[in-house]
Amino acid sequence: MQKDINVVAFDADDTLWVNETMFRDCISLFCDLLSGYDDHEVLGKTLESTQTRNLEVFGYGAKSFTLSMIETAIEVSGGQVASGVISQIIAMGKEMNRHPVRLIDGIEEVLRRLSERFRLMLITKGDLIEQERKICKSGLKDYFSCIKVVSEKDETAYKSCLDLHGIKQDEFLMVGNSVKSDVLPVINIGAQAIHIPFHTTWCHEQVCCSKLVGKDFMTLDHASELLPVLLGDK
Amino acid sequence: MQKDINVVAFDADDTLWVNETMFRDCISLFCDLLSGYDDHEVLGKTLESTQTRNLEVFGYGAKSFTLSMIETAIEVSGGQVASGVISQIIAMGKEMNRHPVRLIDGIEEVLRRLSERFRLMLITKGDLIEQERKICKSGLKDYFSCIKVVSEKDETAYKSCLDLHGIKQDEFLMVGNSVKSDVLPVINIGAQAIHIPFHTTWCHEQVCCSKLVGKDFMTLDHASELLPVLLGDK
Repeated sequence: MQKDINVVAFDADDTLWVNETMFRDCISLFCDLLSGYDDHEVLGKTLESTQTRNLEVFGYGAKSFTLSMIETAIEVSGGQVASGVISQIIAMGKEMNRHPVRLIDGIEEVLRRLSERFRLMLITKGDLIEQERKICKSGLKDYFSCIKVVSEKDETAYKSCLDLHGIKQDEFLMVGNSVKSDVLPVINIGAQAIHIPFHTTWCHEQVCCSKLVGKDFMTLDHASELLPVLLGDK
Repeated sequence: MQKDINVVAFDADDTLWVNETMFRDCISLFCDLLSGYDDHEVLGKTLESTQTRNLEVFGYGAKSFTLSMIETAIEVSGGQVASGVISQIIAMGKEMNRHPVRLIDGIEEVLRRLSERFRLMLITKGDLIEQERKICKSGLKDYFSCIKVVSEKDETAYKSCLDLHGIKQDEFLMVGNSVKSDVLPVINIGAQAIHIPFHTTWCHEQVCCSKLVGKDFMTLDHASELLPVLLGDK
């Protein structure tokens, strides 16, 4: 493992910068706003199921999440929710898009060092304009020779990305916080992956243990550990 | 003009399939829903200005448009709009994403014939998941050697697209219904463009005549006219 690698690709949300925390804060605020109708746990679960149901039609990202919050607010209140609450939810959606990007500690140094040896790519899924905005705000754009925003990170998406850029599977390594999106599909097409968990994982990205049987990938505690692994630093 | 072309790129919405008509129908339905609060003209204009203001934060596409409809409904009703109306607006947003794709008459034959001589690309702006879904539903995917969804069609976007695919400006021709997005930025980087107007144009895509001074591009009435122009058919 980690041999003959020429291209290292990074996931973005919760790998380069903090994202899930912002969603969790938003969910918590949503539950406060609707606390007159049910308790936090029920509200959170109802929102989660609306969000999962809407993924197919609306996809990932803050706009989709905002529409799911509005739908849930109407549902849990039996249609009684005040329009002022809905306005507040829309304002939360806008705020998510204006939120500053908070980088994972030490990530820029990791990218700087790795970029001296490898061709770096960024492969992220989600809403195009939201991802582009975060990439721009992050200040990390110039470390990547190529940036791809895809609607789903599955085997087909990785394969077509590698084909387009003339990259062979055995020279490609993906780094990310999601076993489902950054590790399994990459291993399944014969490339390599390193998992760096973020402290919270969105339920939609969680993977059943049985899917890990027979899979070979390294898990690291922090991105800075990529330097000894990939550069042989002590 | 139209010499030495190797790559012909097409816009998607209102060039390959009908799109603006669906938005107009949606606006009309929105105005009916809110007709108790103001007349259609005022409602339409208020929605248009909310939508334009929200483009910067939410971008293009049905989700962004749905959030703007909800925001406008609350505004024009002075917060009195019933939650049932907001639910109907969300349902309209979902319906837009589930809507069948209606191809421009004869477009498939045009693509089939052109694909025998040229490398075809599809370059469209908008929401990633919504555009991918339409491309898939259209049945036209296989005519294109490359499909790009971008968040904005400006000179930078066209330049980086041509660079990525190793295409020279003077071998590239763009075909589309928007002078603003498909013609001017393409001409400005030294490539060629053909304008095929759709019968309605979203105000955001309309261009002031002064921007056309000194610009050289052909306008056609229908995509089928591309065949004589590009293949020399009679």
